[in-house]
Parts: sequence; structure tokens; C-alpha cells
Amino acid sequence: MTTAHHDAGLLAPGWTGSPAAAATGDSAYLRALLDAEAALTRAQEALGLAPQGAGAAVTSVADDGEFDVRSLAGRARGGGNPVIPLVADLTKAVGEEYGPYVHRGATSQDIMDTATMLVAVRTLGLLLADLDRVQRALARLAAEHRDTPMPGRTLTQHAVPTTFGLKAAGWRSLVLDARDRVTAVRDSLPAQLGGAAGTLAAFTAYGATDATALPAAFARELGLRAPLLPWHTLRTPIADLAGCLALAAGALGKVATDVLTLARTEIAEVAEGSGGGSSAMPHKANPVRSTLIAAAARRAPQLAATLYGSLAAEDERPAGAWHAEWEPLRELLRLAGGAARDAAELTEGLRVDADAMRAHLDLTHGLIVSERLSAALSAVLGRARAKELLTELARRTYAEDRPLGELLASEPGLKDVDLGDLTDPARYTGSAGSLTDRALERR
Amino acid sequence: MTTAHHDAGLLAPGWTGSPAAAATGDSAYLRALLDAEAALTRAQEALGLAPQGAGAAVTSVADDGEFDVRSLAGRARGGGNPVIPLVADLTKAVGEEYGPYVHRGATSQDIMDTATMLVAVRTLGLLLADLDRVQRALARLAAEHRDTPMPGRTLTQHAVPTTFGLKAAGWRSLVLDARDRVTAVRDSLPAQLGGAAGTLAAFTAYGATDATALPAAFARELGLRAPLLPWHTLRTPIADLAGCLALAAGALGKVATDVLTLARTEIAEVAEGSGGGSSAMPHKANPVRSTLIAAAARRAPQLAATLYGSLAAEDERPAGAWHAEWEPLRELLRLAGGAARDAAELTEGLRVDADAMRAHLDLTHGLIVSERLSAALSAVLGRARAKELLTELARRTYAEDRPLGELLASEPGLKDVDLGDLTDPARYTGSAGSLTDRALERR
Amino acid sequence: MTTAHHDAGLLAPGWTGSPAAAATGDSAYLRALLDAEAALTRAQEALGLAPQGAGAAVTSVADDGEFDVRSLAGRARGGGNPVIPLVADLTKAVGEEYGPYVHRGATSQDIMDTATMLVAVRTLGLLLADLDRVQRALARLAAEHRDTPMPGRTLTQHAVPTTFGLKAAGWRSLVLDARDRVTAVRDSLPAQLGGAAGTLAAFTAYGATDATALPAAFARELGLRAPLLPWHTLRTPIADLAGCLALAAGALGKVATDVLTLARTEIAEVAEGSGGGSSAMPHKANPVRSTLIAAAARRAPQLAATLYGSLAAEDERPAGAWHAEWEPLRELLRLAGGAARDAAELTEGLRVDADAMRAHLDLTHGLIVSERLSAALSAVLGRARAKELLTELARRTYAEDRPLGELLASEPGLKDVDLGDLTDPARYTGSAGSLTDRALERR
Amino acid sequence: MTTAHHDAGLLAPGWTGSPAAAATGDSAYLRALLDAEAALTRAQEALGLAPQGAGAAVTSVADDGEFDVRSLAGRARGGGNPVIPLVADLTKAVGEEYGPYVHRGATSQDIMDTATMLVAVRTLGLLLADLDRVQRALARLAAEHRDTPMPGRTLTQHAVPTTFGLKAAGWRSLVLDARDRVTAVRDSLPAQLGGAAGTLAAFTAYGATDATALPAAFARELGLRAPLLPWHTLRTPIADLAGCLALAAGALGKVATDVLTLARTEIAEVAEGSGGGSSAMPHKANPVRSTLIAAAARRAPQLAATLYGSLAAEDERPAGAWHAEWEPLRELLRLAGGAARDAAELTEGLRVDADAMRAHLDLTHGLIVSERLSAALSAVLGRARAKELLTELARRTYAEDRPLGELLASEPGLKDVDLGDLTDPARYTGSAGSLTDRALERR
Repeated sequence: MTTAHHDAGLLAPGWTGSPAAAATGDSAYLRALLDAEAALTRAQEALGLAPQGAGAAVTSVADDGEFDVRSLAGRARGGGNPVIPLVADLTKAVGEEYGPYVHRGATSQDIMDTATMLVAVRTLGLLLADLDRVQRALARLAAEHRDTPMPGRTLTQHAVPTTFGLKAAGWRSLVLDARDRVTAVRDSLPAQLGGAAGTLAAFTAYGATDATALPAAFARELGLRAPLLPWHTLRTPIADLAGCLALAAGALGKVATDVLTLARTEIAEVAEGSGGGSSAMPHKANPVRSTLIAAAARRAPQLAATLYGSLAAEDERPAGAWHAEWEPLRELLRLAGGAARDAAELTEGLRVDADAMRAHLDLTHGLIVSERLSAALSAVLGRARAKELLTELARRTYAEDRPLGELLASEPGLKDVDLGDLTDPARYTGSAGSLTDRALERR
Repeated sequence: MTTAHHDAGLLAPGWTGSPAAAATGDSAYLRALLDAEAALTRAQEALGLAPQGAGAAVTSVADDGEFDVRSLAGRARGGGNPVIPLVADLTKAVGEEYGPYVHRGATSQDIMDTATMLVAVRTLGLLLADLDRVQRALARLAAEHRDTPMPGRTLTQHAVPTTFGLKAAGWRSLVLDARDRVTAVRDSLPAQLGGAAGTLAAFTAYGATDATALPAAFARELGLRAPLLPWHTLRTPIADLAGCLALAAGALGKVATDVLTLARTEIAEVAEGSGGGSSAMPHKANPVRSTLIAAAARRAPQLAATLYGSLAAEDERPAGAWHAEWEPLRELLRLAGGAARDAAELTEGLRVDADAMRAHLDLTHGLIVSERLSAALSAVLGRARAKELLTELARRTYAEDRPLGELLASEPGLKDVDLGDLTDPARYTGSAGSLTDRALERR
Repeated sequence: MTTAHHDAGLLAPGWTGSPAAAATGDSAYLRALLDAEAALTRAQEALGLAPQGAGAAVTSVADDGEFDVRSLAGRARGGGNPVIPLVADLTKAVGEEYGPYVHRGATSQDIMDTATMLVAVRTLGLLLADLDRVQRALARLAAEHRDTPMPGRTLTQHAVPTTFGLKAAGWRSLVLDARDRVTAVRDSLPAQLGGAAGTLAAFTAYGATDATALPAAFARELGLRAPLLPWHTLRTPIADLAGCLALAAGALGKVATDVLTLARTEIAEVAEGSGGGSSAMPHKANPVRSTLIAAAARRAPQLAATLYGSLAAEDERPAGAWHAEWEPLRELLRLAGGAARDAAELTEGLRVDADAMRAHLDLTHGLIVSERLSAALSAVLGRARAKELLTELARRTYAEDRPLGELLASEPGLKDVDLGDLTDPARYTGSAGSLTDRALERR
Repeated sequence: MTTAHHDAGLLAPGWTGSPAAAATGDSAYLRALLDAEAALTRAQEALGLAPQGAGAAVTSVADDGEFDVRSLAGRARGGGNPVIPLVADLTKAVGEEYGPYVHRGATSQDIMDTATMLVAVRTLGLLLADLDRVQRALARLAAEHRDTPMPGRTLTQHAVPTTFGLKAAGWRSLVLDARDRVTAVRDSLPAQLGGAAGTLAAFTAYGATDATALPAAFARELGLRAPLLPWHTLRTPIADLAGCLALAAGALGKVATDVLTLARTEIAEVAEGSGGGSSAMPHKANPVRSTLIAAAARRAPQLAATLYGSLAAEDERPAGAWHAEWEPLRELLRLAGGAARDAAELTEGLRVDADAMRAHLDLTHGLIVSERLSAALSAVLGRARAKELLTELARRTYAEDRPLGELLASEPGLKDVDLGDLTDPARYTGSAGSLTDRALERR
């Protein structure tokens, strides 16, 4: 062990080893920085601002050259960002002929922002793939359990029955919301190109007739959107990323929160496919996937807050607001990406115990359908008498430990009422089935 | 002065008295809660779930009845939300005949969420009106100062020239981004209706053939979107509001941050139309509007974070996550709304000192165009010699306190170069003009 | 209903009506602002900077005069804070003779910050009183249930037994941590006095020989600490408040989180003394106090973050960072104060079902003591055989639905082992008892 | 470049290469985890719970063994934390005789929390060393510039004069506040030991007579404080760390914010010793150290918020709240540590231009002393006439571009007044000198 700083994910079981981790490591950022530099030279060549061959030369070195991440990280301190030392190394590696066309006219932030967008687009693609796995698994669960009754819980207490199908359909709906917003943001992310103060002036100084054509050409090389304006301090793309990633983490967090509740020893209506075991306590099957997703959901909002805070960035390029974005954005990408991986495994492997769900419907002695009884008995007995009767029986059902249906059966005024149906929690799931059907129609 | 709690905005000069303040006060929430209850009865009547006349009866009392906000607030403690006591008061006020059709089948959260959406839609409308004032003022400033050169500043230092037109166009672009997102969210906000656990079961118990028709009918009464599913714990609408409001506050925060910098005593390139004065210090014209906007921008991200955090809400209705949304969402609406009002006044009254901007371009002895000179002189003298010469002259220009142009003029190799043009900062604004034009085309 | 903004706490059942609410309303702030102004004149009189009688005159008007909060709030917009209009009103009310000695030499922030410290000291006192109620209630619960065994739960699953006494003692320990930090901060809060830029220069201009004596005299009048330096942009007191209030809210949040879990219908080991009822669902006793505390705990950290963020305040007095503190600090005081009130009621009324706790220890068929068995059987059978046996029996106990003790009893190698003791969860609570005793010794 | 995730600090110029970085890398955490495991076995040996030699055997392997961070990180996914695979590897490496005494009776969180405290103590020591460098540099600056007048700025505008000495003394005061709180927290951090559910039961099962002696013995081995209770879900130590680190980052952020303002091209009263240069723009000396500190100050509050949020952790060990602490706490340690390093360099190298400060005092034509004149002239001319005169002259001084002193000199009523003294900004610094002296007495 050396004392040099080096992170391999020891503190991050939630995202280490995930597709998003690989797509956001220092190497992936370096790759994106080099891609951006190479694309810039190619775009300049295409517009006649660099000699033929410059683009290919820079691209070749950017693709195949050796660049030392650790050295770049160390030298980034001087100017406050890694682009400065990278340009030095790349220029040198490209050599005398085409070296002058590396980074020409650009500012560090042009490259850093563009690389960040590349990393984001790539990572969001992986995130979307895992969100799709999640929504498909949830669609299957919702369809399979369309009519599986279970207690609906509000403020931690049994309220009225619902179905596991409706719950799973709701989870899926939230995941689809996240998917839609992530997709929209991914497709909107622009390249960045403005030069020192966002006027594109240096490109004109180097001979461009209309420098405003360059950002679009640059964006095209990279598959990013052309920016309307340089956005060095107009940070909508960062805010949009913050919003969609916080939503994605939160949506998955909702699923995890529910699973953690339903997996409790006393409830045990669901279980993770492969819980983390404990050798000293063989009965423990920890809901580890849900735990790690829940942890991500706790962290994402504050990371997003930091990014929203960077909107208030002064001048043409800011002293701090920009630098404060880099790590939180990467962390958000990782947390959302890692959570999506875990959620895919969680939902694909989730074990559902419909019997336990059914059994729990009786935990409140039949009172879980008291809302229904209140409506039905009011029609027969009048509102006042119905309410009085239910209040009395609610007391007795606990005191005497007898089911509500039994107590009702001895009420003379109710002999013509089909109490079997009325007191069956499984028959009081309202529109759960049709709501589930409707939700599953959404693609 | 009594000791009873009562807020009239003493700590909130940023939004007190603004349109958003009136639209989000306790009275406005009470109005929306009553609107929601009345609409629910009307919708039930329309679907045959309440007798003819019930809707009109409830609506009439909701519109004209007297309800005591303070009493409701106090009694909200018992069940943890204000809908419970309000339903009691409303039912009583409606009277025996139609009272039973007040709130029938609904849960408190149905009404609270729907009222919140009504308040949000109304407040966002006011916010959008002020954002429109801002963007129009900025469009005017951008057009008027399309060719007003000023120092472009990066990391607090003069970098290369830009124009005030481009700066104003950038501000406007950010405000339009906010406008677009706020508009999209406003148009998407759904009514809430699900009953105790989101299954609509009670409505069926009360006789609905297809209870799923009710939420749409309810939404229609209120001009809100029909929900795909009850969203008691699927909080996308809240997250969407958080995102667009944080963006709006941040976008205005960017404008304020720049004004605060440019209004500094030493810079004084802009001034607020009517600064807050100080009688003891008659030279002080404080940029108060910008100050209050900046304060809002500092607070909004963390309020949004709390709302994103509430996505992880357990069960069918949660114990805490929901309750934690109310005040932060209202505060976000107020902060964004108040900031938009201040930004409208700020931008409509902003005084721009083009002479000061021009004068500051010379503060770096002409070095503000060194980037351009570097390009131009390289073409004449070769890169190495050009760099050497500029480094030397940069040193001398400060040491001898002479402008760079003058020093260059004595260089023999440059006699054929039009140094007047080359060293004029006002002629090195690159594509600022055409970028401004392009940005102003956006509507 | 008018359209004027006016808040009476409709959205805040968590703190409306609490002692902290009354101590932090606009009226309370106005009271503190007036107290600060009066104290300043008295302190100046004491040091000979104001004529005899000035202090009493200002104090009398400050105590008994009529000041219109709503008007002040509206006029605060002009200069961005409420002190400016208040000084105008107070000066006028004091009259010609002593009016000139109102606010003389001070800046708005001197008065606003000092008033904020007064409000904080007063509110923290109320908070501490409620925290003391909480700790006493928890001490009683811990003592009473010192030996009440219950399942220890980790990652939502039963792990090994613990006692409710230890749990309550832990809650109390956390509350005492909060109490200690709140107390230390309350006793450290300083008055603020620096004049326009923190140099006390105006006081010298008005004749002070040694103006540095004035802040201490001012502080003395108010029972606040004398500041080492004016702290207009040295915001340690605000950060300290943020920290201790976030801790207090979080500590109570821990209690609430546990109660919400233990009160679940399936667990029901505890219940709130008076749950919020539902007329349509008579079986529901919602844990409302815990719900509102949990909501406060979700919000406090982000409010604290805004306050910590204001440490980075520029210049001698900042444009925005200061203004961003006012409402979040008040809200934190309210949330912590309201949560403490709810926690006092919660803990004083908490109903504990020791039978349910005991019964749940058997939910895992005896495996909740497998850790102990692993240790004990290893000593008898050797580690390898013990592990093999336990793994096998763990499987069988679920498959055959038989308790572990019964299966072990048929193992020939264990006939000399006291399995009754070994498999009794109530006898595997480790040091829970003595840890509880030790924790209760803390005062 | 491989696609494996691996971070070397490319996005973190603010802390990469700092002492805090080395002390918080994955290797440092691994070191601390191993230290904790070894200490646990030694403590058990000391209390007779492990055979003689076990402690030395485990310590030797922990100190000199080879452990693969990347492999551990990958395997941490299974159970959700890195301790589980580490215990497996360590047990195997220790071998058959003493292997059973590795981690015996402990839970993963015991080791993880203890290791986190070790990392924190070590990193806080480094942070304190750099804070001490900062305070010494600031003490020197304050003493050196005790009487260097400069404009006091409020809401971005010149208000009244102050001194750079007082400003530096204020910065130092804030840094000392941070130092004091960091020191107190460092000295309070406890070891963690409770076993599966915090009852220490397993240690009794393994033979301890009084297991409560073990945590203290364990703590002693590591130089940490003995815990009163296991604190698996009583997270005061984490909250305390959050608070003091947010304060430290914010205190340094205040210094950076001021430097960024004062280093602006138009102000240029201070400059960083070695600004980050730009080859294309030789006039640019970017305040890079301040920029990176400012970025840290923007991020720290939200990281602290996540940690405060984890106070609300359910049960005996939580599913998510704990896991959400690891990376934010590490990041906070890094940000504060990196900022302190940068602040040490910044303050030790800060260049102060007293001439520029003096010159700027005249930017408002002498009105910067209008507060003083108002006091002095009132005594001579009466309040009303003095105010009228100053208002008139304030207008004229700008209109005619003449200094206020000159205009005053032509006032007949003032011929006996020493206008030279009265209008000299350098003589209106109030108590700045003595406040500076007093602040420097603080050690």
C-alpha cells in the first residue's frame, strides 16, 4: 500500500463495477477530453481553419497515444483544470506540423464541458438500458399480480386493500417518467464552443469567415447538439441533467423504499432474489440491492442542489461555480447508473409471497374493509346507525378477538346483506385492476 | 403585539407583496382546497354519484362561506393536515341534505395535492408573466447594445472583449429556457384522486360503475390534467415543479450575479434603476433588486433538494415525505415568483454605461487583445518570435505604463501591419454581434 | 378572504401553535428588533454617547408603541430589509428630542443580526424545555423496559435480540447530545455591532473615546455575549445554529423513524398515545406525531445547508448571502421547536406492547439466537460441525415449521447442553441491561 | 486505457495531491479497516477473549499482508459493504490457529465506523496543520496591514473606509473558529463496537464476563474515545464531523470570496502569489487557489446536509442511511483538507497593493466619509442644514467631477473646521486598529 490517493470504489458498492462506473471513471473522462480535442481539429479542418491532415493526425494520437491520468491530475492544479496539461501533452505528441492546430482558438472550458456532455450522453445510454430492464420486470410483475390483493398502507397503517399489481404498475409508471425525462435530456445535450469569452473571436483571428459555423460542425463530429450560444455561464444543460438524474434516483428510491418495508421480517411479502447473507445469522437475508438504491436516493437530491446552485455563475466564465460541478455531476451519473443496475437485478429477481399478502389482509380483523361497510350499511341502516354500529363492532372485534364478519352476522338488520362478499378484503380492491391495465398500456 | 404566530412577510422582502405572494398565502391555499372539494362534488354529480344540486350547493358554500384559516391551522395538528378540519367545517356549512356528498370517497391527500396543483398552476402563470417582462427587457437591452464592447471576464480577470449585447442575449436565453420548462410543467400538472389507498374503491362502494372516469371528470372541473394513476407516492409532478423552479431561480440568479459584479463601485458599468439609498452615505446606491434575487437563488436549490428527496415515499401514502413537501414547494413558488418580479424591475430599469465599458477595455494596457495579436503576429513573424515579442511587451507595458499598441509600433517587423485595427479592443468582439442576432431570433 | 398574503400556519401542522411558533412569528421578530434598538440607545447613554433620558425614552416607545408589521414588511422592499422602515417609524414615534439617538451609528445589519440572536436565544430556551421533557420521558421508558426483550433489527431483518430499554436509552442519549450542543450554542450567541463596515467608526464620529466598549455594553443590555469582532461576514453564530438545530431535528427524527417502524400494523410493538383517527377507517390510528417529526427531519438538513452556504459572504456586508439566512434560520428554529413539542407528547404518551415484542422474537423459529448457538455449539461440537448443523437446522426449521430448540433437542451430541437457556431469545440480550444503566447515569 | 473504473483525481484539482487526499484514499481506508480489525483482536486478547498471540498474529498480517483493494471493492457488492470480503481475506491470511479470532463477535459496521473515525482523526490532523498555516499567515497580514486603509464595501458598494488589517484579522478569526470546532470534534471521535445489534451479546457468548469493558479497550488500542453506547444509529459523531467540516470549508470560502473580489482586474488590491497563467492571454493571472477553495465552499454544505439527513436511521442498523454516509463524509474531508492546503498557499503568498487600496478610497469623490461629515457638520451647522448641504454637494461632486473636500472648502460656515482631517478617508477607519489588535490576541 502506498500513500498515494487512488480510488477503486471501496466505499461505493452501490455503483462500483456498474456500466455507469466504467463510463465515468477518470479514463472515460480522459477519453472524452481527447475525443473533444480531436473533433475540434477535424471540425476546423472541415471549415478550412486547419490544413488537410491535421484532423486525422490529432485524432490518431488522441485515439492511440499514451496519456498519464495521474500526471494530468497532478498538473491540473496549476491552472485549476485538467485540460491545460492535456493540451500540452497532446500538442507535444502530435508533433511540430499539426501541433499548432490542437485546441486552437478554444478555451479549457470548451473542451471540459464538451467532454462532460460526451460522458453524460454515454452514461445516460447505459442508465436508460437498465431503466428499460426495470420497467420490463415491473410490467411483468404488474401483469402477473394484477389481481393479487394486499393491504394498502398509509401513514404506516393498513388502510384499505390494494393489489400488488397496482403497486408494481405505479413503480413502473414512475420509472417511465424518469426514462422519458432522461431520454429528453440526453437528446438535448450540446457541445460547447465559444473561445476565451464566448465570442468565438479567436477563430476569426485564425481566419474563419463565419466562426459561428464552427460550433455546429464541432457538435456534428461528436453527435452532440449544436449550441444556440456558448453556454459557459448559461448552465441549462447541467441543470437539466441534475433534474433528470435526481428524478431517476428518486424513482428507483421509491421502489427500494417499498421493498425494504415489504421485506421486513414481520411483513415478508416480498424478498430480494438473492439477499446478502450472514454466516453467524443464517436467518438473515438482507435486502442489499434495495439498501444500496435507498442510499443513492438519499444522496442524489443534495448533489443536484449543488448543480442547480451553479446556475448563478458570474461573468463570462466563473471562478468556482463551474469547478463545483464536475464531481457532483459525475457522482450523480454514478449513483443513478448504479441504482438502475441494482434495480434491474432487484425487480428481475423479486420474490412475491401472495399468500402472505392475503393473510395480512386479516390482521385488522376485517376492519380493512370498514370503509366499504360504512357505505353499504349506510344504505341499509341509515348513516347514523351504520356509523354507530361500526364503531361498536370495531371495538368488540379487538376486545373479543373475533372477525368483524362474524360479529356482523349476528346483527338482525343485516340478514339480507351478502356479508361474505362485503367483508372479503380481496373483493374490495376497487379499480386496482383496471388502473393496472391502463398503466401497462403506456409504453 | 400578541404572542400568537402570524407572518406578514417581515423577513421576506424578496417576495412579500409580489403576485406570487398573494397566490400562495394561506388564503390562497384555502381557496384552492375549497375549489377542489367543490369540484369533487360536481364531478360526482356529473357521473351520477351525487344527487342533482349537490355540486351547486357545495360550490356555493365553498365560494361564499366563511372559513377561519387560523382555526383550521390549529386543528390540522390532530390528523396532521388541514383537510380534515376543513371537511368538517365545510360539511357542516353545506348542511344536512348535501353535506354527505362533501369529500365523499376521497382522502385528505386527494384534496391537498389537487389544491397544491391549483396553487402551482396559478402561481406559475404569474411567474411566467414576469419572466416574459424580463425576457422582453433583455431583448431590448441586447438589441440596443448589440455592438457595445466591454471586457469579457473569466475567473474574475479581463480575458478578451465581448459585448453587452451578447451578455444580455445570454441572460435572455437562460430566462427563455426557464420559461419553456416552467410552461411545460404548468401544462402537465394533474389533479389527484385515488381514495384511501389509490384504488378508487370507495367511489365504487358508493355506486360508481367505472370509478376510473371520476379523476378525469374531477380534473376537467379544475382545468388540470387527468392523472394516469393516483400519484400519492408517485411524485413526478412535485419533482418537475422542483426542477423548473430551481432553474427559474437560478437563471434569474445568473442575471443578478452579473449585475452585482458590474455594479461594483470600481466597475460601475451598470446600475439598478432605483438603488436602495442610504441617508448617511449619499454615494451609496445599493443594488437591492439584484441582492434579493441573489438571495433567492442561494435558497432555491436546497428547497428543491427536499422535494426531490420526497420521491422516496413509502407505501400507498407516506408518513412524513408528503408532509415535508408543503412548505418547501410554497417557498420555492414564492422565491421564484418574487425573484421574477424583482428581475422584471431590474432589467426594465437597468442603466448601462457604455462609456465605462469602453474605458475598461484599456485597463490591461491593450493586452486584452493579446490573443488576437498572437494569431496575427504569428502569421507575420512566426509563432516563436511572436510569442517571445508579446511576452516581452506584456512585461514592458505594465513596467513602463505604456499601451501595448505604442510599444508594438516601434517594432520594425510590423510596419506593414495595421496596428490600429489589431489593437483596438472594440474591433475584437468576434461573432458577438451575429450570436446576439441569432439568440434574439428565438421567441 | 382577501388576496393579501398572510400566513397563519395552514401548511405547518408540525409547528403551528407550538412555543417555537410564537417565539418566531413576525411579531416576535419585531419585538426583538425593537428590543435591540432600545438597548442600543441605552448602551450609548451609558457610555455618554446619548443624553440622559434617551435610553428610557426609546425603550418606552419600543415597548409600548404601535408598529405595523404589514406596513414594515411592505416597505422593507426598498432597501431590502425591515430595519430601514422600522428606524424611520421608531424615530418619528420617539420624537424630536431623542429621535436623533435612535439607531445612531448603527447599520441595519447590526439590529437585524442582534434581533435574530435574541429570537434564537428565546426559541432555543423553549426548545430545550421540550427536549428536557423528551429526555425525561425516555429515561422513564428506558428504566421501565430495561429488561423488555425485543428483536434487534438490522437492514430491516431480525438480527439478534435487544431490549426496548436499550433502544429508549439510545434515543435519550441522542437527545442529550442535541441538548448539549443546543445549550452550548445558545450560551455563545453574540450581539452584533459594527456600524456601516464593521469599524465602529460612526460611534467615534459621534464622540466615543473608545468605541470598542460599546458592543459589550450593548450585549450586556440584551443578555447576549459580547462579540470579539463585528461578524457581519464572519458567520460562525449562524453556522453554529444551523449545526445544532439540524442535529436536534435529526435526533428527534431518529426517534420518530423508529416509532413509525414499530407502530406498523404488522409490528405494533408501540403505539402513539393518541393517534390521529379516521372516521371511515376505525382501525386506523395514525402515528401523527411521528409523521410530523419525520417531516421536520427531512427538511432540516437542507435548511442548514443554506445557512452553511452563507459563510461564503463577500466584503464587509454581502449582497444576498445575508438575506438568504433569515427565513431558513427561522424555519429551522420552528421545525426543531415543533418537532420537540411533538416528541414530548410522543414519548410521554408512547404505549409499549412488551408482549408483542416478546412474541416477535419467535418469528424466526429461534434462529434469532443462532449467533449464540454458533458460539456455544462450536465449543461442544467443534466449529465445523457446529456450522454444518446450524445450517442444516436453519433450513429445516422453516421447511418443517418447527422451532429450532425442538430440532436441536433431538441431536444426540447436545444432550448435556441446557438448550432451554441457550435458545431463549430473552436470555440473549447481552449487555443491554448494563448499557442501559450506564446511559441513564448521564444527566 | 481500460474501461475499468479508476479515479486518480482528474476532476479534483481542489484536493488531488493534498495531504487529505492521501489520508482518505481507498488505501487509507483499507489501512484503517485493517487497523481496526487488528485492534479488536488485541483488545479481546487483553481481556482474555482470545488466546495469547492472537493479537500479534492478526496485527502482523494486517500490517504486512497483501490485500487487493479492487477485488475487495468488487466483492463488497454482495453484502453491501467492504468489511465482509476483507474479513474473509484477513481470516484466511491469518491462518487456522488465530483466524477464528479475527472479527469475532463484531458486525461489519463496528469495523467500518471505527475505520471511518480513524481516517477522520488522521485527516483532521492534517487539516488542522494547514489551518494553522493559514491563521499564521493571516496574523502576519493583519499585523502588517493594521493601518492600511481601504474601502469598506457593503452590498457591493463603497460604504466607509476600513483597513486591510481588520479584514485579515476577521478572516483569521473565522479560521480560528473552524480550528476550534475541528479540534473539539477530532478529540471526541469514538470507536464503534456493539456487535450485531449493539448489545455486545456475542462477546458474552464467546466468554466475556463483562463485555462492556471491551469497547473501551478497543478504543484505547486505536487512540479513539470510548463510546458511551454503540452508536450504529446514534450518529452524533457523523453529524459533528459534518458541522465542523462545513464550517471549515465555509470559513475558507469567505477568504476566497473576498480575494476573488479584490483580485478583479478593476480592483486589483490583492493578487495571488502565483496565479494560473494563460499563454494566449499574458495579462491574465487567474486566482486559481481562491477559485478552487470557492468551489469547495459551494459543495460542502450539501454534503453536510446528506450526513445530517442520515441521523434519521431506523432500527439497530439501517438500510441505506448508513451507506449514504461513506462517500459524502470522505468527500467533505477531502474538500476541507484540499481547501486548507490551497488557503495556506493563498494566504502565505498573497500580494497586497496598499497603494491601490488607498487610491480607491477616492473613487467616490470623498463621499466615502460622508457618514463622518454628517456627524461633524451636524454639530456645527445643525442636523437639517448639514443634511441639506451634504445632499447638494454629493450631487455636485459627481456632476462637476470635483472632490468633496474642495466643494466643502468654499462653504463659509465651515472655515473653522479642519476639513483636511475630516475628509481624509485614511483617518476615518474608526476602531479598526484596536479591533485588529484585540483579534490578534486570540490564540
